[in-house]
Amino acid sequence: MTLVPRPVSFAAGEGTVEHGVVETLFVDGPPQGYRLTVSPGGTVIEASDEAGEFYAYQTIRQLIGPDAFRVASIDRTPTMLPVCTIEDYPRFPWRGCMIDVARHFVPKHDLLRYVDLLSVHKLNVLHLHLTDDQGWRFEVKRYPKLTSVGGWRSSSRYGDRRSGGRTGRPHGGFYTQDDLREIFEYARQRHVLVIPEIDVPGHSQAAIAAYPALGVHGGDVWTDWGVNERVLNTEESTVDFYRNVFDELIDVFPSEVIGIGGDEAPGHDGSFVRQIAQHLVRRGRRPYGWDEIVAAGPLPAGTIVASWRGISGGVTAARDGHDVVMCPEEFVYLDYRQSSREDEPIPVGTVTTVEDVYGWEPMPASLTGAEPGRVLGAQANLWTEHLDSPRRLDYAAFPRLAAFAEVVWSPREKDPGFLDRLAAHHLPRLDALGVEYRPLAGPLPWQTMPGVPGFPR
Amino acid sequence: MTLVPRPVSFAAGEGTVEHGVVETLFVDGPPQGYRLTVSPGGTVIEASDEAGEFYAYQTIRQLIGPDAFRVASIDRTPTMLPVCTIEDYPRFPWRGCMIDVARHFVPKHDLLRYVDLLSVHKLNVLHLHLTDDQGWRFEVKRYPKLTSVGGWRSSSRYGDRRSGGRTGRPHGGFYTQDDLREIFEYARQRHVLVIPEIDVPGHSQAAIAAYPALGVHGGDVWTDWGVNERVLNTEESTVDFYRNVFDELIDVFPSEVIGIGGDEAPGHDGSFVRQIAQHLVRRGRRPYGWDEIVAAGPLPAGTIVASWRGISGGVTAARDGHDVVMCPEEFVYLDYRQSSREDEPIPVGTVTTVEDVYGWEPMPASLTGAEPGRVLGAQANLWTEHLDSPRRLDYAAFPRLAAFAEVVWSPREKDPGFLDRLAAHHLPRLDALGVEYRPLAGPLPWQTMPGVPGFPR
Repeated sequence: MTLVPRPVSFAAGEGTVEHGVVETLFVDGPPQGYRLTVSPGGTVIEASDEAGEFYAYQTIRQLIGPDAFRVASIDRTPTMLPVCTIEDYPRFPWRGCMIDVARHFVPKHDLLRYVDLLSVHKLNVLHLHLTDDQGWRFEVKRYPKLTSVGGWRSSSRYGDRRSGGRTGRPHGGFYTQDDLREIFEYARQRHVLVIPEIDVPGHSQAAIAAYPALGVHGGDVWTDWGVNERVLNTEESTVDFYRNVFDELIDVFPSEVIGIGGDEAPGHDGSFVRQIAQHLVRRGRRPYGWDEIVAAGPLPAGTIVASWRGISGGVTAARDGHDVVMCPEEFVYLDYRQSSREDEPIPVGTVTTVEDVYGWEPMPASLTGAEPGRVLGAQANLWTEHLDSPRRLDYAAFPRLAAFAEVVWSPREKDPGFLDRLAAHHLPRLDALGVEYRPLAGPLPWQTMPGVPGFPR
Repeated sequence: MTLVPRPVSFAAGEGTVEHGVVETLFVDGPPQGYRLTVSPGGTVIEASDEAGEFYAYQTIRQLIGPDAFRVASIDRTPTMLPVCTIEDYPRFPWRGCMIDVARHFVPKHDLLRYVDLLSVHKLNVLHLHLTDDQGWRFEVKRYPKLTSVGGWRSSSRYGDRRSGGRTGRPHGGFYTQDDLREIFEYARQRHVLVIPEIDVPGHSQAAIAAYPALGVHGGDVWTDWGVNERVLNTEESTVDFYRNVFDELIDVFPSEVIGIGGDEAPGHDGSFVRQIAQHLVRRGRRPYGWDEIVAAGPLPAGTIVASWRGISGGVTAARDGHDVVMCPEEFVYLDYRQSSREDEPIPVGTVTTVEDVYGWEPMPASLTGAEPGRVLGAQANLWTEHLDSPRRLDYAAFPRLAAFAEVVWSPREKDPGFLDRLAAHHLPRLDALGVEYRPLAGPLPWQTMPGVPGFPR
């Protein structure tokens, strides 16, 4: 069995058959699920829904072999499929990846490539962290300075904030509203839901630089990393400003779920977050925030919590009756270093190997009764302070994101053969896709960044 | 008329019609040409060949509007086309762009995006400069160190070689043979011919670093820019080595034309180039080299010359009976600075504005009789010493490459309204494509590189 993520069941038959017409039947079954039968009589998909059919096709690509992941054929021989029967459906409905496009802007075409990569791995949520201290990436027609001023910074810290130098090179970029509509629709066609996030009331220095009245201290778009003391003020005019910003965000994104951030906001008492959350609820959306919002006071029903500081925020939220998404930093922060080797580029955070990610169990053991039903799933987070190009993003994301995909899609039991399957069958697919992943043996020479300081924990 | 490049003729009709089924007829006509009729009775393409049909579809995309260049629809209203009749065919058969993937590696997916961008502009040759002193990007199975050693360097000069600092950051990457087969086939489907170049006997320090017996002085993969004194030696074993390298290149690329470089090789007498050229001819291919090869002694019949040091090399070669491609550095070296502004990022070379490119006439006036028939066309060259990312490539290439496309496709007469047409109709297409072009008014703040020295001429 070569598939990643591993299906619920795989029954190998005898030999191979030529790949031809595929017949799809829609049948009752688990959401996003499918049954795939490859036999001399033909290939049949029995899908629960359109997502299930889509995932069956992703499985067929993997069965064909690595070259099925190229954009053009390099081979004229017939395409063969192994005779087999597969039953498959996801363990969790929320199988996500967050990309921080604020710290380093990710051009639209690269983001679209990540949509493709997520869908190859049967992941279905792309959480876009659109704003932070270091840059504002969402065009707001009412407040154009958010991008003309807040959309770029004059320099960046190069490496860790305590000891790194400075690039001296401006960095910026933003998405137009039409760009984001395009990304959303492209992703929707691949059964990936794009969930946007505007982070309030912390991580807002770029907005404050554009409109100083939003803040307390003023200041430029931040050129450093870390938790910023300069947060939004609590004036009614500031809340109103953000109601207008979120109204434009809602207009662009049909997503029911809308991210509001809420993390790392020194000095705030939660009222700002509650007011924005209530505004979203009035507009028929579900607010989605980092686990700090659990302490923000009574949250509107329907609010979703992302548990990143370990699992306790998620456990508390689930017991409070909120849906939760698990993303504890020690397991699924894919900007954290992939090994304890000295040549890991800008090593930060805890060691998070591909085995660590694969070994992680997203469901907190302490949840009982109906509480586990509150766990929608999990997401891996790609913070980009130290990922200054799509090539660096590839290195951080893969192959760990493939391991993560199996964690959230496949049955709970771990496969002791996962690493062998990854190495023998899945890395060649990533090669064909042109993904510049971290080799299991360690970084390639040109993936290292000697002399650029990290801050390993 | 909104099209770029401008068609041979455009007759506007009354009003618009809904875009529906397009009928294609193949008729006799100029190569790569088409006639497009949009009327209330339907849309009809009369194409000379498959390329003509393809270009008609590119024209239809432009007629639809900028959103036709998005990868997913953002609009539910019917797509409308203006009633019109267009006759169109290219002025030159060779409408090229060279990308230097050696100085800075361009990941496969970015190169594929450039194939798309060329085809949007009805350009049909992608010349890949695969090797140079600073990096070897072509997998050679017989000589794996060409990529494992020659495929990366430890650092790069940041800015001009005379005054720039050093990045201290390793840089590298290469394409597998299957990657290049994929790129070739993807491009072929878009009527773009990929022509590979292995540069000999100069610009070979990366190969010498991998296999020191090829050179005279040894040394590492070069971390500087400029003309390198360390060239290949003239041992028979070195010529043999390269025969083997070109044999693998030929195996990967069905292109009749194969680039051999031949430029800037201090101390060489031409025999190396002649031997490699003869080897290619024996293998049924046409050698393609920079204009220095004109002085290399008698070249095999069929050799094509790229005239880059002005036009004289091309004129001489045409008179000698060789086909030529015009690419004089003062007009179509798109790494050269786009204005005399101080904030042009790393300003090098002569000022080459979009107007300069548009105003250029590729056909040397001094050619007479049958000689002009030797001019296959022209290509714009993107050298990447100072273009260290795809975002920088976008800035250098566009919008000048759109002007170049009109130079090589459209009738010789210049359109005084070109810049207005570009600004009003074509830049919005590039926006929709996500191309980070240089705005006509000057660089965006985050496109500048203050403090990184250039060397303006």
